[in-house]
Amino acid sequence: MVHFVGVEAMIRLVGKTGPREFLTGLGNAIEHDFRRWERFEKTPRIASHSKDGVIELMPTSDGEQYGFKYVNGHPKNMKEGLQTVTAFGVLSDVSTGYPVLVSEMTLLTALRTAATSAMAAKHLARSGSRTMAIIGNGAQSEFQAIAFAAMTGIEAVRLYDIDRSASRKCAANLSRHGLDIAICASAQDAVAGADIVTTVTADKQCATILTDNMVGEGLHINAVGGDCPGKTELHKDILHRSKIFVEFTAQTRIEGEIQQLPQNYPVTELWQVIAGRKDGRSSPRDITLFDSVGFAIEDFSALNFVRDQALSHGIFEELDLVADLPDPRDLFGVLRHGQGPLCGPHRPVAAA
Amino acid sequence: MVHFVGVEAMIRLVGKTGPREFLTGLGNAIEHDFRRWERFEKTPRIASHSKDGVIELMPTSDGEQYGFKYVNGHPKNMKEGLQTVTAFGVLSDVSTGYPVLVSEMTLLTALRTAATSAMAAKHLARSGSRTMAIIGNGAQSEFQAIAFAAMTGIEAVRLYDIDRSASRKCAANLSRHGLDIAICASAQDAVAGADIVTTVTADKQCATILTDNMVGEGLHINAVGGDCPGKTELHKDILHRSKIFVEFTAQTRIEGEIQQLPQNYPVTELWQVIAGRKDGRSSPRDITLFDSVGFAIEDFSALNFVRDQALSHGIFEELDLVADLPDPRDLFGVLRHGQGPLCGPHRPVAAA
Repeated sequence: MVHFVGVEAMIRLVGKTGPREFLTGLGNAIEHDFRRWERFEKTPRIASHSKDGVIELMPTSDGEQYGFKYVNGHPKNMKEGLQTVTAFGVLSDVSTGYPVLVSEMTLLTALRTAATSAMAAKHLARSGSRTMAIIGNGAQSEFQAIAFAAMTGIEAVRLYDIDRSASRKCAANLSRHGLDIAICASAQDAVAGADIVTTVTADKQCATILTDNMVGEGLHINAVGGDCPGKTELHKDILHRSKIFVEFTAQTRIEGEIQQLPQNYPVTELWQVIAGRKDGRSSPRDITLFDSVGFAIEDFSALNFVRDQALSHGIFEELDLVADLPDPRDLFGVLRHGQGPLCGPHRPVAAA
Repeated sequence: MVHFVGVEAMIRLVGKTGPREFLTGLGNAIEHDFRRWERFEKTPRIASHSKDGVIELMPTSDGEQYGFKYVNGHPKNMKEGLQTVTAFGVLSDVSTGYPVLVSEMTLLTALRTAATSAMAAKHLARSGSRTMAIIGNGAQSEFQAIAFAAMTGIEAVRLYDIDRSASRKCAANLSRHGLDIAICASAQDAVAGADIVTTVTADKQCATILTDNMVGEGLHINAVGGDCPGKTELHKDILHRSKIFVEFTAQTRIEGEIQQLPQNYPVTELWQVIAGRKDGRSSPRDITLFDSVGFAIEDFSALNFVRDQALSHGIFEELDLVADLPDPRDLFGVLRHGQGPLCGPHRPVAAA
């Protein structure tokens, strides 16, 4: 049987420890896999674009396990009361090819994106960073705030969204999490005094959420929302002043803020900093930019983390996804169970 | 909720009509999609190779629905009592990106492979073909026999396998299906007098199941087993004497029998014959070869056919795979249900 973690089970798993601890554990799992980055099979995601959005498959493997995520991005869904992004994922055993886990990843993608952001900031932001601005207060914003609070010591959050009701929703959700929260009147207002700025807007277009004059020395920018071809959030001038860190260069060149730069513009892969191969921030005056688009290895880490949590808490279902046969050559034989008249007396099978 | 068709449900669905009718309906669904081949998005499958086997993702879309299959191929599994090939698939709505169906495809792949083979033979084999040889009597063999009986009028089946117990298993499974069955001592013996030869062996290597002297005028060869790089079944001389038909040329050049031929060797895509764009067999003396490796569109057709069957018979489960939120921007809000202490009184959620 394949283990299944549905939406309800994911909610219960996060509830078992609370989101802070869950995000911290998840961030540690992702960091662990970034340290052994070279062991993973890496390909850019496989995208199917349509008028309204995109559906993507993101596979990877460390040679022992294989994982992939299915994820869509449909900005117009929001107006119809649907999620912009939904996702699910699968883990398999490389030695047999059998799937072992199917998990919802709509919630889990939000969690792993935030955990990755905070894990990156732990390595790149100035030590002593306490205040974060969040530009874009949609579905991802609270996860970002709590992950940064848990993993980097952020104490104050300054919110801005073109839709003020989104900021109010975010502030209300964060009200019991021990953070000092301010709703700001503009992006410029939100950024004022922030040590870290997270941009996480959803429009599928080249927007300029941050302009150069808003970015002071020493800032760490966590750019999460520019994550597909033609979608960016930062003015190009900011990129020229920043040390730029990415997940997987080949994918970020296509999807990230660095779409705006020449193909050979120097960037550093984050795993190299984590593994001690390359420098991260070299001075408190550096502007560091994590140009995050999301990569398959983060999903792989997340699926493994969820599998461990699900098994240790006994929170999962079993899925009748793979035929278990007495004789594997006799696949046809299993049909006899449902066949009735053709094969002797009718043997109805109970509803699964 | 996403509809789920597990192994037990698939067995019941096939049992509702019996395998002949199921395979015929499936073959018609595949033929329908081959006629509108140009509407589909086509990419070679995305493969992750390892020491023991391969895991593949096979996506496609017709612009309204998106489908993909996960499938593994691990020849050594058989010795461990596991399936060589297991699979599952997903259908989604392109306009929202939401998944609508998750289905087992271990059985369904066997069914669609056989239905595709028989559908191809309907267009390519000599009319009046009554006898088929099946070389390789493993998990796929019975499906082939029944699909050809149902869709092309095959009445006699001649079986050969290097493992005679596999032939006996196949013969026993086919004993109630109204076919004249012979177990043969050699491939040459099996092929003698056959109008159609199906090769469906499993070893991951270049084997020579058929040699040139075994292939007489007018034969239709349905080559199913040569389906990955380095794996072929036919001697090259046979290819030179045959009119060769393929599913998707770019993929077959990598995986099919035509790996043995130059990259520009002329082949015809089967959909062109079905759509009336190109000739199939032009004389009863032609040797026709369907060099089948399996393509994503066949899985797409199969998932749609199963979805129709599942809904019309009410045989499916519901899967808690996508979060349904009152406010889609408030993804974080759903966590409150599992959170307990952090958000007021503990509200345990019943096991899903």
